Amino acid sequence: MFEDITGSKLKSLDMNGLEALCEDIRGKIISSVMQNGGHLSSNLGVVELTVALHYVFDFPEDKIIFDVGHQCYAHKMLSGRAEQFSSLRKKGGLSGFPKRSESVYDSYNTGHAGTSISAALGMAKARDLAGDDYNIIAVIGDGSFNNGLVYEAFNNLKQLGARILIIINDNGMSISPTVGSMHEYLEALKNDVEERYHKNRRAGIFERFGLEYDGVYDGNDVAEMVAELTKVKQKLKSGSVIMHVMTKKGKGYSLCEDDPEATHGISEGGEAEITEYSKVLGRELCSLAADNDKIVAVTAAMTGSVGLSDFFAKFPQRAVDVGICEEHAAVFCAAMAAQGFKPYFAVYSTFLQRSFDEVVLDICSQNLPVTLCIDRAGISGADGETHQGVFDLSYLSLMPNMAIAVPKDAEEFAEMLKFSAGYSGPLAIRYPRASYHTFGKCKKIELGKWEKLSDGDGKVAILACGERAIWRAVCAAERVQKECGVRPSVINVRFVKPLDEGMLLELKEKDIITIEDNALIGGFGSLVAARYSGSGKRVKIFAYGDKFIEHGGVEELMDDCGLAVKDIVSYIKENEIG
Amino acid sequence: MFEDITGSKLKSLDMNGLEALCEDIRGKIISSVMQNGGHLSSNLGVVELTVALHYVFDFPEDKIIFDVGHQCYAHKMLSGRAEQFSSLRKKGGLSGFPKRSESVYDSYNTGHAGTSISAALGMAKARDLAGDDYNIIAVIGDGSFNNGLVYEAFNNLKQLGARILIIINDNGMSISPTVGSMHEYLEALKNDVEERYHKNRRAGIFERFGLEYDGVYDGNDVAEMVAELTKVKQKLKSGSVIMHVMTKKGKGYSLCEDDPEATHGISEGGEAEITEYSKVLGRELCSLAADNDKIVAVTAAMTGSVGLSDFFAKFPQRAVDVGICEEHAAVFCAAMAAQGFKPYFAVYSTFLQRSFDEVVLDICSQNLPVTLCIDRAGISGADGETHQGVFDLSYLSLMPNMAIAVPKDAEEFAEMLKFSAGYSGPLAIRYPRASYHTFGKCKKIELGKWEKLSDGDGKVAILACGERAIWRAVCAAERVQKECGVRPSVINVRFVKPLDEGMLLELKEKDIITIEDNALIGGFGSLVAARYSGSGKRVKIFAYGDKFIEHGGVEELMDDCGLAVKDIVSYIKENEIG
Repeated sequence: MFEDITGSKLKSLDMNGLEALCEDIRGKIISSVMQNGGHLSSNLGVVELTVALHYVFDFPEDKIIFDVGHQCYAHKMLSGRAEQFSSLRKKGGLSGFPKRSESVYDSYNTGHAGTSISAALGMAKARDLAGDDYNIIAVIGDGSFNNGLVYEAFNNLKQLGARILIIINDNGMSISPTVGSMHEYLEALKNDVEERYHKNRRAGIFERFGLEYDGVYDGNDVAEMVAELTKVKQKLKSGSVIMHVMTKKGKGYSLCEDDPEATHGISEGGEAEITEYSKVLGRELCSLAADNDKIVAVTAAMTGSVGLSDFFAKFPQRAVDVGICEEHAAVFCAAMAAQGFKPYFAVYSTFLQRSFDEVVLDICSQNLPVTLCIDRAGISGADGETHQGVFDLSYLSLMPNMAIAVPKDAEEFAEMLKFSAGYSGPLAIRYPRASYHTFGKCKKIELGKWEKLSDGDGKVAILACGERAIWRAVCAAERVQKECGVRPSVINVRFVKPLDEGMLLELKEKDIITIEDNALIGGFGSLVAARYSGSGKRVKIFAYGDKFIEHGGVEELMDDCGLAVKDIVSYIKENEIG
Repeated sequence: MFEDITGSKLKSLDMNGLEALCEDIRGKIISSVMQNGGHLSSNLGVVELTVALHYVFDFPEDKIIFDVGHQCYAHKMLSGRAEQFSSLRKKGGLSGFPKRSESVYDSYNTGHAGTSISAALGMAKARDLAGDDYNIIAVIGDGSFNNGLVYEAFNNLKQLGARILIIINDNGMSISPTVGSMHEYLEALKNDVEERYHKNRRAGIFERFGLEYDGVYDGNDVAEMVAELTKVKQKLKSGSVIMHVMTKKGKGYSLCEDDPEATHGISEGGEAEITEYSKVLGRELCSLAADNDKIVAVTAAMTGSVGLSDFFAKFPQRAVDVGICEEHAAVFCAAMAAQGFKPYFAVYSTFLQRSFDEVVLDICSQNLPVTLCIDRAGISGADGETHQGVFDLSYLSLMPNMAIAVPKDAEEFAEMLKFSAGYSGPLAIRYPRASYHTFGKCKKIELGKWEKLSDGDGKVAILACGERAIWRAVCAAERVQKECGVRPSVINVRFVKPLDEGMLLELKEKDIITIEDNALIGGFGSLVAARYSGSGKRVKIFAYGDKFIEHGGVEELMDDCGLAVKDIVSYIKENEIG
C-alpha cells in the first residue's frame, strides 16, 4: 500500500490516511525485523513522528540526522526504499542505519551516540555560508542526550548563530533505562507544571544554550505531531528550537512495550539476542566479587547487553551505569583504581573507541589495574560499518602498559577473568558475542603465555587469536594434513600483548602464519611482523584489509574479508609445503 | 624562605605570612619558568588559591585534582618539592604536570582537559565504598569547562551521591580566550545581580546536576579564599559544592597579564613559543582560502598556537573556535564537508586522540574531505607523557580511507597544503612544532608518492618520514659513506599512507630501514613490515619503544628512545655492509 509513498503523495493524505500509513509502516517493521533481525523497539516508537516530519518538511532539501541511527526504518520506507525493505541488514541489502551512499534522503551517517547535534551545526554553518535556507533537524533519544558530545555542540550553538531543530525522542530508555541528572531534568520538564509554565525563563538549561524549549508533546499522536511541527517550522526561520517528544519504545507491539531492553536488538529469525560470552562475564564477575570487595563493575548504558544484570542486582553499591558516557566511564574507572579498587568496564568494542584518549592517558599512562571487558569484538555482522569491532587490537596494542588477552572459548574467558582479578596493570579482554566452539581443557592463564593446541610436523606454525580465528586455523590445519600429509602447528594466542617470546623461540625454525578477527593494520599479525623486523623471518598475516566492512552475516563477511579457510589452505600449499 | 613550608608550618602562618608566601612562590615560578620554560600565566593566576587550599585542607589525606594540570606549580612547591623546582621540565627533574609517581600529594595525573570531575567522582565512589571521609577537590579552568567530559561527569554526580568540591578557576581564558555558551553562563553568574541572588533556585544548571553553587569569589585574595574555603569545607560534609573563583591569568607579572595567550606556554630560556610549521599553516591557508570560498578553519581553543590568528582575522565567517571540544570539532568538520565545504581542523597530535572515534566514523567511514593539520607531532619534549605526539601515525593509519602526509620541511608542508586543497578524501598532515632544516627543492606532491633524496650505491635504503627522521637518515647515510665507502639511499616518505608501491618495487633489491618520530607499534615501519609479510624481506624499524616518554629535551629524548644516529649507523655497519 505505501510502497510508492513519498513527498507529494504523503502530503496529500488526510489525518486518517496518515494514521493508516503509520499502521502499515508498523506492520512492515515488525515483519521485516522478525525475519532479518534489527532494531525493533526504537523503530516502532518513532513511526508517527517520522510520518509527521515527512508530512511537514521537504526532504531531501531539508536534512534530517538520526542520532545513533537505529530509529530510521520508517524514514527509509518513506524515502523510496519500502520495496527494498525485506533486504534489511542482509549483505548487499539496505543498511539498518542511515547511509549517504544508499540514499540522498540520508544526509549523514550515524551509529554512535551524540553526534547528531554537532553534525546539524556543521550543516547549518555550511548552509549559512552557502546562502541556502533549508531546514536541519536532529532527532536524538534521551539516552544519547547524556553523551558529552551533546554539550560540546550546545556550547557552540549560540556562537554559530545556527538555526536548527532538535527533537528529543524521549522514551525513558537508552538500551538500558536512561540514568542521570539530564534524564531527571527531562522528567521534571514533563511532570512539573511549574516548569512547563516557566519553560521560557532565562535560567532554563536549553535557553542558556540558545535553544527555545518548545514544550512536551505526544510523539505517538500523528495529528499532534503534524500540528506542532508545522508551528515549529515557522519558529525555525528565526532561531533554534528544541522540541521534547514523548514516545513509547516498542509502541504497538506488546512484546516490545513490555520489555523494551530485551527487544532493543533482535537477532535474525526473531530471537532476542543471547550472548554467551556476556553470560560468562556476568557469572564470573559475580563469583569474583563475592570474594573481593574491591571489584566494581561499570557500564555505559548497556547493563543487560554486556551481561551485568545479575551483578547489578547482587552488588548495587559496586555497580555503576554512567549512561552513554564511555569517556567518563574510563576516567571514573582509572580514579577508582588509583584509590585501590579493581574496576571492570564492560563495553562493546566499537563504543570503546570513544574512550581512546582516556584509555591511553588515564588508564595506561598511570598504569592502573582497570580491566576492559570488550564485547562484540571482531566482525559484529548485520549492524555494519559503525558497529564492527575490528580495530581494537590495533588501537589498544599501541598503548604502553596495556596487556591484551583473547580467549579461545567461553571456558578460557572464565579463566582469564580469574587471572584478571590478580593482575595489577591495565588489561583488555576482547571477545565476540557468541561462542560456538570449545577447544579442550584450559590450562591456567599466565601473562603473555600462549598455548600449543596441536604440535605439527610441518614447517608452518599458525598463530591464531580468539575463537573464530582458532576455529579457522584448526580447520585449515586439518585440511592441509588430509591433503598433503603434513600438519601445521596451531597455537592459541591467549595474549596479543605481550607476545610469548618463549613460544616464538620454540617456533624459530618454522614459518609463521597469523590469523585474527581484526584489521591487518596495527593488529596482531603486524605486531609479529614488526617483532621480526630486521630478521628476514617469513610472517604471513591473515586479517581484514584496509576498508570499512559493511553489514552482512558474520561468517560470510569473515570469508569475504580475507579469513576464508580455503585461502589459508591455499597459501600453505602454495608457499610452505612443496 | 618557603623551601620547607608544608602542612603544619603553613597552617601556623597569619594572613600577612600567607601573603608573603604567595609573593615568594610567584617569584620562584617566574624565575624557574623563564629559565626552564613551562606554563607561566596559568600558574601565576592560582597562587593565592593554592596557598589557601593548603591552609584549609589536609593534603595528602585530602585529594586534589588539577584539570589539565598546567596550574600545579604552587602545589608542587607546597608539597615538599620547592627545592627541586629548578629541575622543572628537565629530563629526570620535576614534571610540569601532576604525577602520582613523583609525589603522594599528586593524587591523579592530568594533561588533557575535562578529566578532573570524572576522576573526582571515581575517587569519591572509592572513598565511600571504603568508608573513608577525606575531601576531594577538582580545580578546573573555565576553558576546560567546555569539554564534554565535564557534562558526562555532572550527569553522573547526583546518581552517585558523591560529595566533592569543584572549583571553577575562571580567568576567561583557555589557551585562547574562552568561547561558548557555558562561558556566557559563567559571565552571567558573575555579572548579573539577579542571578547571584537567585543562585539556589531549582532551575540553575549546577543545581540540576546536584551541586550547590556557592557564589563568586576573588581567587587572588588569599584571605577571602581562606575564609570561603573554610565555610565550604563544612558544606562538603553533606553534599557537593561548586565554587566560582575569579583569577587573573598571569597575575603579578605584567608581561603575562597583558598577553596571557602568548605567555601561556614559555619555551626554555624564556622565549615565547614560536612555531614555524604553524606559521606556514596560517600563511598558506589564508592564501588558499582567498581563492577557494569553501575552505573553513576550525580550532579547539588554540587559535594562535596552531597558527590561525591571521586566518581568523581575515576570514571570520569561515573560522570557528569551538572551545576545548575536539570531538565536536571533528563531527562539525565532517558535516560541513558532507555539504560541500573543505574544512581544516588544526589540532595538536596529542589532543586529536580525543577525536579518535569521530575521525574513524564521521570522517573516514563517510570518506569526507576533512584535512587534519596535526601540530606538535612526534616527541614534543618538556611537557612529557601527556603531550607527546608519538601515537598519531599508529592510530590514524588503521583508519580506512585516511591518507597521511608527513612533510620533510616547511617548504614541503606548504606544497602539501596546496595538494590538500584539491584532494577529495580524509587527509592528515602531521608535523612537529619547529622546523630547523631544509632538504632542497620540493617537487609537486602526488598522493602516495615518495621522493628519493639520494640514490645510494649500497644495498640499503633508508625510508624516513618527517623532518626529524630525515635529518637523522641523512646524517647516518653520510657517516656510513665516510666510514665504509658505500652510501645508503635515502627516501623522503611523504606519505605514510598509502605506501609508494612504485618506489618499493624500485627498491626491491635493497634491504630496508625505516625511521620515524612515532611509536614502533602500528607506525610507519610496522606498515612496511606488514606490507612485506610472507615475503621474507628484511625490514629494520627505528621508532619509539613501547613505553610512555617522560619530559626532557626533544633531541635527547629522540636519542634515548631509539633514534640516535649512532645506533642507525651501527646497525647498518653490523648488518648490511660487510
